[in-house]
Amino acid sequence: MTKKATLNLDDGAMRLVGKNETGTVTAFDVTSENGGNGSAASPMEVFLQSAAACSGMDILSIIRKKRKTVTDLRIEIEGERAEEHPHIYTSIAVKYILVSPDATEGDMKRACELSQDQYCSAFAMIKRSGCAVSWTSGIERP
Amino acid sequence: MTKKATLNLDDGAMRLVGKNETGTVTAFDVTSENGGNGSAASPMEVFLQSAAACSGMDILSIIRKKRKTVTDLRIEIEGERAEEHPHIYTSIAVKYILVSPDATEGDMKRACELSQDQYCSAFAMIKRSGCAVSWTSGIERP
Repeated sequence: MTKKATLNLDDGAMRLVGKNETGTVTAFDVTSENGGNGSAASPMEVFLQSAAACSGMDILSIIRKKRKTVTDLRIEIEGERAEEHPHIYTSIAVKYILVSPDATEGDMKRACELSQDQYCSAFAMIKRSGCAVSWTSGIERP
Repeated sequence: MTKKATLNLDDGAMRLVGKNETGTVTAFDVTSENGGNGSAASPMEVFLQSAAACSGMDILSIIRKKRKTVTDLRIEIEGERAEEHPHIYTSIAVKYILVSPDATEGDMKRACELSQDQYCSAFAMIKRSGCAVSWTSGIERP
């Protein structure tokens, strides 16, 4: 499985826009203190979010395969970066909240376990890099 | 340094939208074959692009610190994923092309080296995960 993308500079500062093989775009920028215009999230913010999204989509699939209804899935993710270059993430904490009228706490916990331990490519790579990943899960009723 | 984000489901399928601390949003989706609506790039496509953007912004900073003009920066990135779960990236190839009237091939090569070997957080984590990263650099005149 090959994934390809091309990025280009999109303003006179730091904004970069990536285009994937089907032409959909993703923008990256940094705040003015970092020389950008703050028009989009920063690369390392997006890196963190891509892991949450990768894992979130696993969870959506698993919950729906159990014939449970998903009203919303909220994922709060927080990463701690090293002070020294290259400022890697040393720890990441994830809170998964499923809003569902019928899924149980057990359904949700199992879905998160399957994503974190077996399916999520991004978290697998992040963990292999040496970053500590912790997570909690919960259910809210709509 | 802490980075935080919250993601929510944004349609009845797989679209997730992340919001960073300053409120800028990043969308993730998958193609219809994967249960989505193809409204945005997939999490692992964005993961790859975030590394390219992280590194690209290092390069923009370094080239500009040398008082050279950046007309464009084009980054082509290609990742090969494992066939088996969790489908991690096993190798990534990056091609950095700087469009500049005055930067030299040497300026650009050095900027890419500094990013890849010292500054880029995303590629540092990707390499630590065991993924092989290769890159080339070039200059085009505007």
